[in-house]
Amino acid sequence: MRHLIDPMDLSVEEVDHLLVLAQDIIDNKEKYSEVCKGKKLATLFFEPSTRTRLSFEAAMMELGGNVLGFSSASSSSSTKGESVGDTVKIVSCYADIIAMRHYKEGAPMLASMKSDVPIINAGDGGHNHPTQTLADLLTIKREKGRLNNMTIGFCGDLMFGRTVHSLIKAMSRYEGIKFILISPDELKLPDYIRTEVIEKNNIPYEEISSLEDAIGSLDVLYMTRVQKERFFNEADYIRLKDTYILDKSKLALARPDLSILHPLPRVNEISVEVDDDPRACYFRQALNGKYVRMALIMDLLGLDKDFKA
Amino acid sequence: MRHLIDPMDLSVEEVDHLLVLAQDIIDNKEKYSEVCKGKKLATLFFEPSTRTRLSFEAAMMELGGNVLGFSSASSSSSTKGESVGDTVKIVSCYADIIAMRHYKEGAPMLASMKSDVPIINAGDGGHNHPTQTLADLLTIKREKGRLNNMTIGFCGDLMFGRTVHSLIKAMSRYEGIKFILISPDELKLPDYIRTEVIEKNNIPYEEISSLEDAIGSLDVLYMTRVQKERFFNEADYIRLKDTYILDKSKLALARPDLSILHPLPRVNEISVEVDDDPRACYFRQALNGKYVRMALIMDLLGLDKDFKA
Amino acid sequence: MRHLIDPMDLSVEEVDHLLVLAQDIIDNKEKYSEVCKGKKLATLFFEPSTRTRLSFEAAMMELGGNVLGFSSASSSSSTKGESVGDTVKIVSCYADIIAMRHYKEGAPMLASMKSDVPIINAGDGGHNHPTQTLADLLTIKREKGRLNNMTIGFCGDLMFGRTVHSLIKAMSRYEGIKFILISPDELKLPDYIRTEVIEKNNIPYEEISSLEDAIGSLDVLYMTRVQKERFFNEADYIRLKDTYILDKSKLALARPDLSILHPLPRVNEISVEVDDDPRACYFRQALNGKYVRMALIMDLLGLDKDFKA
Repeated sequence: MRHLIDPMDLSVEEVDHLLVLAQDIIDNKEKYSEVCKGKKLATLFFEPSTRTRLSFEAAMMELGGNVLGFSSASSSSSTKGESVGDTVKIVSCYADIIAMRHYKEGAPMLASMKSDVPIINAGDGGHNHPTQTLADLLTIKREKGRLNNMTIGFCGDLMFGRTVHSLIKAMSRYEGIKFILISPDELKLPDYIRTEVIEKNNIPYEEISSLEDAIGSLDVLYMTRVQKERFFNEADYIRLKDTYILDKSKLALARPDLSILHPLPRVNEISVEVDDDPRACYFRQALNGKYVRMALIMDLLGLDKDFKA
Repeated sequence: MRHLIDPMDLSVEEVDHLLVLAQDIIDNKEKYSEVCKGKKLATLFFEPSTRTRLSFEAAMMELGGNVLGFSSASSSSSTKGESVGDTVKIVSCYADIIAMRHYKEGAPMLASMKSDVPIINAGDGGHNHPTQTLADLLTIKREKGRLNNMTIGFCGDLMFGRTVHSLIKAMSRYEGIKFILISPDELKLPDYIRTEVIEKNNIPYEEISSLEDAIGSLDVLYMTRVQKERFFNEADYIRLKDTYILDKSKLALARPDLSILHPLPRVNEISVEVDDDPRACYFRQALNGKYVRMALIMDLLGLDKDFKA
Repeated sequence: MRHLIDPMDLSVEEVDHLLVLAQDIIDNKEKYSEVCKGKKLATLFFEPSTRTRLSFEAAMMELGGNVLGFSSASSSSSTKGESVGDTVKIVSCYADIIAMRHYKEGAPMLASMKSDVPIINAGDGGHNHPTQTLADLLTIKREKGRLNNMTIGFCGDLMFGRTVHSLIKAMSRYEGIKFILISPDELKLPDYIRTEVIEKNNIPYEEISSLEDAIGSLDVLYMTRVQKERFFNEADYIRLKDTYILDKSKLALARPDLSILHPLPRVNEISVEVDDDPRACYFRQALNGKYVRMALIMDLLGLDKDFKA
């Protein structure tokens, strides 16, 4: 039995298998509509995350399966002092696979050690969110037709953004990648990722503070939110925030084939006027998230063998 | 693609079509039990409303479809600052149709402008609640055999009751209607509805403060709650509240073929002793709500064409 | 139409029928996978209880049925002042059977008087929790191969533990039963159960304060939690609490064929080191809870007649 706790648990080959399966699901929805008939997914969300939860639930339903679970800790037995291990042990009696979101880093890992069914980490604190990374990868693959030979810009809060860290790790395994790291000084990529991931893999990269200066050279732009509470003082925040808002004027400097990604939810870091631009991929990215979760559920349940993509 | 935001979005012909379809569903449940197979309804309830939510969910399930969603704002991404437009755009990736309840008037209208799938307004603040109006209309139709030529009394809080306003608008389009507006002075029907809807359509009406005086002339009595907090002082409330409680003694003055409706939940404005009277229609009204929602879901998904009623 | 409010509503013959049906479901899952197709279970949980709710939901899904409902009072119409009777009357329009959890003792009984569909009490305050008792009975039956001729120890809080009271009542109806009541003086079994149930049925029993002294003579050990807040002073609690924690050293004194039950959730009254011992039945007990709920749902819906076990 396998779990998915950290995006790097998957080899490049396993990622490719999931992306190929996801694409086949997209192309042949009918073929997969009863694959999980009689199976149940439990969504154990110890902190709310509507989009992620609904994406998992839609994924399971489109495979013909059922869904049960809870959407916040207050409605769980954890308030009675039950350990995550016990909760998972019991939910194993009710479901064939579990998607767990937890506010504590490492909780899904602990859970996987007690569970009798596969656990998918649906986000643990600031740590990992592997199905978001898979959604990001499927989006790049579908938009660009490839995962290698491209320049990817990451813009905004590169210090705390777990989706940025995971995607950098995942993309570092492909050929011909270059990273442009666009952030204020206060929110630069942590050293351990820069040295242990990017430099160790000999990936060329630049650190830059201006989105306008960088955008023209990018194949992919991965936007994230710059949160006010990350700054030491209001003045710095006000000075910097507009720099990292993508609007039509900045987009005018970009290539015609740029792909703009965002893990969502966004607040104001991408102007609504950008939504109708064909380069805006973030809503398609949400849709891809559903399909890659379908592929993952099938894979962890061992159901992909009968459905050769 | 169509939405249902305001009950008056529907023409008399469209209402009639929905009511005929609902009746056919009631008469031939089996025929419709797989109509929505593989389809998903999202119930996006930014404020709780258990009855309305469960009614939509039961409706979708009885059509063979699936349901996902949330039942209060606290479990939604809106707490992270996401706009309703973005939420709906993303949920469009997960569901084929959306029922949205929101505490802000106009939110479902805004949502419909961003959505890729049909939106049903399941209540927006004190504004509209079109599926309640459809449930009211189906109930009158089934109980009376007609929607024209009748005297309808509205009793209680006619100032703030959105279901009253909507049903008055909807019934004003039929022939031979007369309204009796029964309320304390403090809670009379707003002028704009009296003049712009009733008078403009030349509908005869009376305003009266005594339920006992009015009840004998009614074909339909639509009860609503008189809330204490609407009154300027406690004394007025105490003086008036019993006047608007329907009990057996007041019911003794009514016609044998009266139909009593109430949008529910009730608190004490209809005495429990009335529940077993055959003239009490309010629980059948709740059941009709489910059937008319089934008809509406089919209609908005374009599935009613193959099921000619 | 029948309801299940109190575990003693069921005769010994009816309990046996449910346990036989549950065992047949376990042995022939496929045979039952569509029994409830087109049926709906409503889970009306006025207080949260994740394990119980998910167990009911999984049960209905494994019978091929659908589930709707709410998981806490805050998301129900009861906040608008609606009576439980009205809620149930309306939910009868949406579902074929209702599982109700309520913080008020007697609420499910009241509900059953208004409901048009079967009500299952899923726990009402400190009162009854009949499906837990059925899960306990199925577990004893499966682990021991019988429900008679055995010595059952109840350990911990015997004063307030409703599952203990119900299981004592249920087991008092079988032959050759002996009870060992293991608790601190402060948490002894209430007199009315000792005299009205145990003594009236001439069941031999002992009251003892040491788990270590008692464990060697037991066929079944039913553990419960000793809650700090039950004690008059901290000193008593600290003195006593370890006495009622089951760990490997105490288990070394037990018979090789002991069966350890616990209604869960546990906090620390059973050490995690015991979990892997084959005598630990509490996770299998959770699984049995699902199966016996499947049998109960079938029985109350009158669907067990066509599926002769």
